Amino acid sequence: MNKAYVIGVGLTNFGRYDATPVEELARDACFTALDDAGVEWKEVQALYAAHVNQGVAAGQRVVREVGPSGIAVLNVENCSAAASTAVREATIAISAGVYDLVVVVGFEKMNHGMLLNVHPPDSPETLMGMTVLPMRFALMARRHMAEFGTTIEEFALVSVKNHHHAVNNPHAQFPKAVTLEEVLGSRMICDPITLLQCSPNSDGAAAAVISSERYLRRHGGRAVQLVSSGLTSDISEQAFNQFDLEMVGRAARQAYEGAGLGPGDLDVIELHDCFSVAEILEYEALGLCKAGEGGRLISEGVTELGGRLPVNTDGGLLAKGHPLGATGLGMIAEIVSQLRGEAGPRQVPGARVGLTCNIGMWSACVHVLRSG
Amino acid sequence: MNKAYVIGVGLTNFGRYDATPVEELARDACFTALDDAGVEWKEVQALYAAHVNQGVAAGQRVVREVGPSGIAVLNVENCSAAASTAVREATIAISAGVYDLVVVVGFEKMNHGMLLNVHPPDSPETLMGMTVLPMRFALMARRHMAEFGTTIEEFALVSVKNHHHAVNNPHAQFPKAVTLEEVLGSRMICDPITLLQCSPNSDGAAAAVISSERYLRRHGGRAVQLVSSGLTSDISEQAFNQFDLEMVGRAARQAYEGAGLGPGDLDVIELHDCFSVAEILEYEALGLCKAGEGGRLISEGVTELGGRLPVNTDGGLLAKGHPLGATGLGMIAEIVSQLRGEAGPRQVPGARVGLTCNIGMWSACVHVLRSG
Repeated sequence: MNKAYVIGVGLTNFGRYDATPVEELARDACFTALDDAGVEWKEVQALYAAHVNQGVAAGQRVVREVGPSGIAVLNVENCSAAASTAVREATIAISAGVYDLVVVVGFEKMNHGMLLNVHPPDSPETLMGMTVLPMRFALMARRHMAEFGTTIEEFALVSVKNHHHAVNNPHAQFPKAVTLEEVLGSRMICDPITLLQCSPNSDGAAAAVISSERYLRRHGGRAVQLVSSGLTSDISEQAFNQFDLEMVGRAARQAYEGAGLGPGDLDVIELHDCFSVAEILEYEALGLCKAGEGGRLISEGVTELGGRLPVNTDGGLLAKGHPLGATGLGMIAEIVSQLRGEAGPRQVPGARVGLTCNIGMWSACVHVLRSG
Repeated sequence: MNKAYVIGVGLTNFGRYDATPVEELARDACFTALDDAGVEWKEVQALYAAHVNQGVAAGQRVVREVGPSGIAVLNVENCSAAASTAVREATIAISAGVYDLVVVVGFEKMNHGMLLNVHPPDSPETLMGMTVLPMRFALMARRHMAEFGTTIEEFALVSVKNHHHAVNNPHAQFPKAVTLEEVLGSRMICDPITLLQCSPNSDGAAAAVISSERYLRRHGGRAVQLVSSGLTSDISEQAFNQFDLEMVGRAARQAYEGAGLGPGDLDVIELHDCFSVAEILEYEALGLCKAGEGGRLISEGVTELGGRLPVNTDGGLLAKGHPLGATGLGMIAEIVSQLRGEAGPRQVPGARVGLTCNIGMWSACVHVLRSG
């Protein structure tokens, strides 16, 4: 197998772009990533485009903005895990020797509203009103509180931490510190989840240039290895009624096994805090602590910058933003920045191994990266 | 590299399914392919779903119908080339050793109408009315006539041939022979393309079970090798104003090179006759004849059943139907049937090497298959 490396990353600021076509956001992320890698667009052999709801031939429309081309282009959709899934596909193609140089770009404009109810109109979920994700995660939170004694404050502290991290991220949609009182006192969305514990509606794009070892040796430059990944799902009539993120654990174990390491070897993590409770459940699913101990990781400061294992140093989905199809590549971009030692005030000292955990409704995708 | 094999195929009849959810069509194609392969759903390690416009998490919705699962699932969109592109991705993953057993399923319901204008509202194409594909192919036809003397009758004969082939295909949407006079006399859509030279609006699904050599040796059974593929695009502001299918030629050369063979080695072909003229242009792009000689291939009977190199033995898009996301897998299913010697009255005697050519607006994907 050929090894695959991220040799450049780029992202737009995440936020609102009412007047900018999504193709231009994606183009800008591609240009930034190509500049970062120091490669020319004409060298690129394939473009993997990730998005959720941006219409037919979205990747091709992006290529038209980036520059005339005849390369392989395809679009990958996997709900909010689309970008991580596209990175996995591109990495597999490089490991198979099909390509030496690929761009993966994720993008989304959500500001016109998106309907993500995948249940049929007459399904039990729709009839019960369980058509939106806050409901699902609120039930998980309540179950965790009842079973393990996790507190409302511990969930809220996730948002405090991630907003604190975002202050030093110029790409973040909400680079503003918030207090525990502000998080708890913000509008109740679905008890116990308040507004500041929900990821926002975001527009944005992120891209990565991925190369083979062969290309990297010739080209030189800074590189971060895509060591391994895992992709799982949890699909059944009952999946939405479950109270854990068991599929995340399976994806993580696939990635750990592929990399020949475990959670104890990680220096920095980007995970899918679509809601505050999700971050705590992922601590447990990723094996960072035992089941039920996720609340302690946040209350004891383990996962904040300066702690033993910083998580979501860029502000996470909660404060950096969550443009669905771009999110997984936003995570990759932050880990690459950390493993290069270029994260500035957000830097985790000496970080050498990082993990991204990206969830898309019924699917989970985990990547392990290592400094080149 | 590990070799990849199609060990089972399945498809629904192509046609109108106003009352059947697309997930059920896709499920039925999966069940047929699994039965054909003689494998259990629970053995499958990944599902690649191909579609154009069936909404978020379509593959996951299909899995829910097929049976509870935790496997890797993703959705691939590439306009009408979605299914071939998904087969290519799955094949790459198997060749990289990521999976040993994968299902690829393509599906589409088009009966509520689909808008495929990818041009911005103020683009030259939209302002000129070039928003629908018949216009593009009609211009190609007129150019071919002017440059090479190809006749209106030669284009029409493509439809006569493919409808004739479809008569023996129980899955075809229009299994009915038509005469040259009927084709020429049908309603004019975009001169010189008449209604019977346009592929219809179709619903349907098709699936393939793809395995590694390792799995095949253990499992046994009939297998057709996915030898190689090519994926290209033609993307620029001017791409829609071009008069050839040059990207098809590049995709074919990639596939020929990967397989170590050329057009002279092919026994049977499934290609993308979205309009009659497309088939003739693809003859040339695939290297079956020189530029300008495509009309002679059809008028001399070379590409009909009984001819030297039969094309679209299942009726092609024109008569079998064209449910966008399923079309490429419909082609794969026919070639597999031919290379197994199981095509019944449509059988090409002794067929050992086949090719599929699937076009999706700005992209082209070609596969070369060989009897196991």
